[in-house]
Amino acid sequence: MSKFDVLTVGNAIVDILARCDDSFLTENGIIKGAMNLIDAERAELLYSKMGPAVEASGGSAGNTAAGIASLGGKAAYFGKVAEDQLGAIFQHDIRAQGVHYQTKPEGAHPPTARSMIFVTADGERSMNTYLGACVDLGPEHVEPDVVAQSAVTYFEGYLWDPPRAKEAILDCARIAHENGREVSMTLSDPFCVGRYRAEFLDLMRSGTVDIVFANKQEVLSLYETEDFDLALTKIAADCKLAAVTLSEEGAIIVRGDERVKIDAFAIPELVDTTGAGDLFASGFLVGYTQGRTLADCGKLGCLSAAIVIQQIGPRPMQSLKDAATREGLL
Amino acid sequence: MSKFDVLTVGNAIVDILARCDDSFLTENGIIKGAMNLIDAERAELLYSKMGPAVEASGGSAGNTAAGIASLGGKAAYFGKVAEDQLGAIFQHDIRAQGVHYQTKPEGAHPPTARSMIFVTADGERSMNTYLGACVDLGPEHVEPDVVAQSAVTYFEGYLWDPPRAKEAILDCARIAHENGREVSMTLSDPFCVGRYRAEFLDLMRSGTVDIVFANKQEVLSLYETEDFDLALTKIAADCKLAAVTLSEEGAIIVRGDERVKIDAFAIPELVDTTGAGDLFASGFLVGYTQGRTLADCGKLGCLSAAIVIQQIGPRPMQSLKDAATREGLL
Repeated sequence: MSKFDVLTVGNAIVDILARCDDSFLTENGIIKGAMNLIDAERAELLYSKMGPAVEASGGSAGNTAAGIASLGGKAAYFGKVAEDQLGAIFQHDIRAQGVHYQTKPEGAHPPTARSMIFVTADGERSMNTYLGACVDLGPEHVEPDVVAQSAVTYFEGYLWDPPRAKEAILDCARIAHENGREVSMTLSDPFCVGRYRAEFLDLMRSGTVDIVFANKQEVLSLYETEDFDLALTKIAADCKLAAVTLSEEGAIIVRGDERVKIDAFAIPELVDTTGAGDLFASGFLVGYTQGRTLADCGKLGCLSAAIVIQQIGPRPMQSLKDAATREGLL
Repeated sequence: MSKFDVLTVGNAIVDILARCDDSFLTENGIIKGAMNLIDAERAELLYSKMGPAVEASGGSAGNTAAGIASLGGKAAYFGKVAEDQLGAIFQHDIRAQGVHYQTKPEGAHPPTARSMIFVTADGERSMNTYLGACVDLGPEHVEPDVVAQSAVTYFEGYLWDPPRAKEAILDCARIAHENGREVSMTLSDPFCVGRYRAEFLDLMRSGTVDIVFANKQEVLSLYETEDFDLALTKIAADCKLAAVTLSEEGAIIVRGDERVKIDAFAIPELVDTTGAGDLFASGFLVGYTQGRTLADCGKLGCLSAAIVIQQIGPRPMQSLKDAATREGLL
């Protein structure tokens, strides 16, 4: 029996979302569809060029935790904000969703992280993230009891960007495994994989990570190949279980020799892809921790992703549990 | 020739929006559909009970200015934020929309105003506003050149809540009239009318205000009657022009003996009424300052309102100019 179904760990970020034309991305050197890391100076410059925006709590693993709670799962989160208004917003939103979140903000500088997310007409989101207070996350923020009591501990590959978060993750993984729990990660972003390929592969091959989430581009980047089938074979060998999302083609789950293909849910309108991968992980992990079949885990993931991409912002504004119940998945 | 079509003056507020059940309103003593004024302590209490939310720049007159700019009009705004993150968001959004906004924030206390807006399943919004830095708005924030060069100066009845804003408004009205401009106000809210009925009537009857915006409930409250036809006759006598919105029944414009009824635009789904009246004023005033017929002014108002109530938040995320052009109204 675990107190939490899933503990997620990630960069605690408030999203600032606005629409833009594709030409805006080109003119400002923003890689489309990617997470572009920026410093404070570039954050100010880009904000001065950004159109009117809306704000919403985000952060990949934060979104996953919120999605798990929205599906009725028990979730916990570790991530670092500052003592400022954006930090208060982040804390409010994740706690109001029912997620255990106790990481203490310590001072107002650097400020709470924000990501300026530009959404183009095709619904694709291009992120520009200033890490702010996230750079302070370290092993001292690990709550050992929470790790020990979580069926799965899940973290972002993005955590390899700030300096000391990986130390926290290695502590989490050790505690989780000592308590017979599982450890999961998302590869986060193809460029993130490019930055930390060797370390991510080592996490998998050393057994530090059991379950891997990725999209097609990230898996191809991980194995530096264009051969998706080969990449799937390789990831199946490197970890116990991998769930690979394929945008409008759904997802494929690989476990040893087993491969389970899931179709995407048809949606009337794609509004904003922000949070799609994060919410897939929510749905999958809720199914997984309930002991459901891989096919049903995948369906829960695809449904959760389908719901979040029909709105602006990364956290569903409706109850995912109700939606999953209507679909007969919960 | 005027440099600005419309100058708007109001409480500069960041909205915090979340859905809730009707029972939440009852349990927490929130008057449905109204603007409930709250202090810092109640703001903290309500936020602790509020579900996960999203943030967007708001403030009635700020929304009107943003809508005017979105329609291609030249807009200016006076309103007071603090030197904090919410203040930076407010400043960014209104300037990024192309509105002239130079009111200087002075210090971080009290903080930027926020309104917790609860949206029920019927789309109705119930606001809970903590005025924060808005209480400091006074005559020293009036930019006389901007008033003198604006065809219409428009302000919120809500400005009678903070202590010194009315002094700023009386200065604005004097400067506007000295320069042959017109002055307009919105009655804002039926309870706001209840608080300042005599003063609002005096503003109209003294000729301080030329054009009045209101909804049906506000006009009925103004004249303390249930007889809408009587109320229309009275308001036609008390000001030069009044535009009265009627929710799904559109609007009625009265000028002397003239009455022009406008139908509402049919919408597929009512999501959130936040900003409906504000955006009606945007559309109407853009038409009015372009010298269009009252019917066309009303249609521009109804279209702008129809667009904003199909999204969460008070400022349209799409170009109103494009929408009005598609409808053949601009």
